[in-house]
Amino acid sequence: MASRTRYSIGVDMGGTNLRAAAIDGEGNLLGKVSGSTNLGEGREAVLNDLVSGIRALRERFGTGELAGVGVAVPGFIDIQQGFIVGCNNLPQFDGFPVRDEISRRLGAPVILENDANAAALGEKWLGAGRGVNDLALLTLGTGIGGGIIVRGRVLHGFVGMAGEFGHMTVFPGGNPCGCGNNGCLEKHASATAVGAMARLLQLGDNLTSKDVLEIAQGEGEPARRASAVFETMGTALGIAIANLVNIFNFPLYLLSGGPLPAWDYFAPAMYREVEKRSFTWRNTKTRIEKAALGGEAGLFGAAYLPFLELES
Amino acid sequence: MASRTRYSIGVDMGGTNLRAAAIDGEGNLLGKVSGSTNLGEGREAVLNDLVSGIRALRERFGTGELAGVGVAVPGFIDIQQGFIVGCNNLPQFDGFPVRDEISRRLGAPVILENDANAAALGEKWLGAGRGVNDLALLTLGTGIGGGIIVRGRVLHGFVGMAGEFGHMTVFPGGNPCGCGNNGCLEKHASATAVGAMARLLQLGDNLTSKDVLEIAQGEGEPARRASAVFETMGTALGIAIANLVNIFNFPLYLLSGGPLPAWDYFAPAMYREVEKRSFTWRNTKTRIEKAALGGEAGLFGAAYLPFLELES
Repeated sequence: MASRTRYSIGVDMGGTNLRAAAIDGEGNLLGKVSGSTNLGEGREAVLNDLVSGIRALRERFGTGELAGVGVAVPGFIDIQQGFIVGCNNLPQFDGFPVRDEISRRLGAPVILENDANAAALGEKWLGAGRGVNDLALLTLGTGIGGGIIVRGRVLHGFVGMAGEFGHMTVFPGGNPCGCGNNGCLEKHASATAVGAMARLLQLGDNLTSKDVLEIAQGEGEPARRASAVFETMGTALGIAIANLVNIFNFPLYLLSGGPLPAWDYFAPAMYREVEKRSFTWRNTKTRIEKAALGGEAGLFGAAYLPFLELES
Repeated sequence: MASRTRYSIGVDMGGTNLRAAAIDGEGNLLGKVSGSTNLGEGREAVLNDLVSGIRALRERFGTGELAGVGVAVPGFIDIQQGFIVGCNNLPQFDGFPVRDEISRRLGAPVILENDANAAALGEKWLGAGRGVNDLALLTLGTGIGGGIIVRGRVLHGFVGMAGEFGHMTVFPGGNPCGCGNNGCLEKHASATAVGAMARLLQLGDNLTSKDVLEIAQGEGEPARRASAVFETMGTALGIAIANLVNIFNFPLYLLSGGPLPAWDYFAPAMYREVEKRSFTWRNTKTRIEKAALGGEAGLFGAAYLPFLELES
């Protein structure tokens, strides 16, 4: 029997598998499905899986009560056209009218959003950003992505590329980045950068940030070196976040991603830099905190999109 | 005889003298008055001068047609309370309810805005930012201030301190700044910084950016050194603006202030840095341009505030 609750469906195409969730306007999770299709299995398989996941939720919770469907995808989005642009993880969708195609198959309107933006929106709705209307989220992963919420909504920029915090210059002559720059934040503070710096300090090959944290929690010279890696990471993050604090004067900056468990190792250097480099920080009650929703943030944010659209 | 045109009055308290202008909704300048009172003559004198300037315009253009009064002031603004906070140029107004006091004397509502924010709004309305809804303005003066326009409106931040571009870190170990940081943008790219760098290169004492430009336009070793000053300025600006481009993905970034005539000397280094440090720049039609309104931007932006409020 269909529920009488108005709800929306959020979809996250950002991970290895598809996930979809039905969430009501108060943020209660009504139901959740995970797709079985690997994103590498091709466009048609992914679309089928995605649409059947959404249909399953819709049948369960009612077609009439569905406020809309939001889909979080990696890569840049051409908002007008509803395309994904330049996403290495989903090359088969590059330039494909993914929004309109899902919408056609469902017979329902679909809103597309970049996954980091959706995560920022999710945190604002149901996570660490509850109660504020303006925040920035930095996602520490292979690179560093970001989402900016202004007046309760995603700041997209004029072609949907806003929030590229990972390519802020923190050390003008620093590590070279694939983007052509030197000293990009993500070359010093992403999960990948932590592993790369640990290798440079001869702590081992192919280390994850979790591995490096375990070494730091040990003893002796390796622990000191691993701590130095997180110190550098925190310094880079602090320089970048101080800039954001000076630019935005937002009440809240959130961090998410794999290196978060190493908070106690990188955060002191981060706070030290922000304290030094931002009088706005020193004179306001600005907060820099851990994001709360982990890998669910994008899914929840995607589900929030239809409610936001109804408000406007 | 009173005009039948709906208009607003903008006031700029940002310079040495007060200025007020009556402007209609299409941006036509109807009339302008300059106060005779130096801002240093004390609060009561300044308030009297300001209110009598506004009254003169109101009598000329009609009380019934007045949409409102906007006042641009230097320093941070406590938006809720209508206070100016921490402004060295107007210490006598620190913590004084300036908005409500002007409003009381006029018998009309008053909107207060920071002068750099007002300048950004003025450029958006009638200057180089016509036709875009999102832009950032950097004002190169004694320091470097800034204004951010998002969706056609000023981004204030949660305590009104947004847009402190001058304190972005561009060289983490660079010149010390009064704010406690090293390598602030304004220590390398403000009008003051140009003079200070010229002094370090033994080009002379107390040089303005105009003086340094004249040396650069000459010949021989002094010209080469003066050019190097602008090269450093452009490099610093480029690092900062590349960050802004990566963060905001706005279509337009504007520069204003005393060093603007040296554009041909600093802009090549600026563009070179942005080109290197921002793939967003390389992949979009982002523009970095001179602001168009000069010292009038704040006045025009102040006059725009009442019209904006009517729209909302």
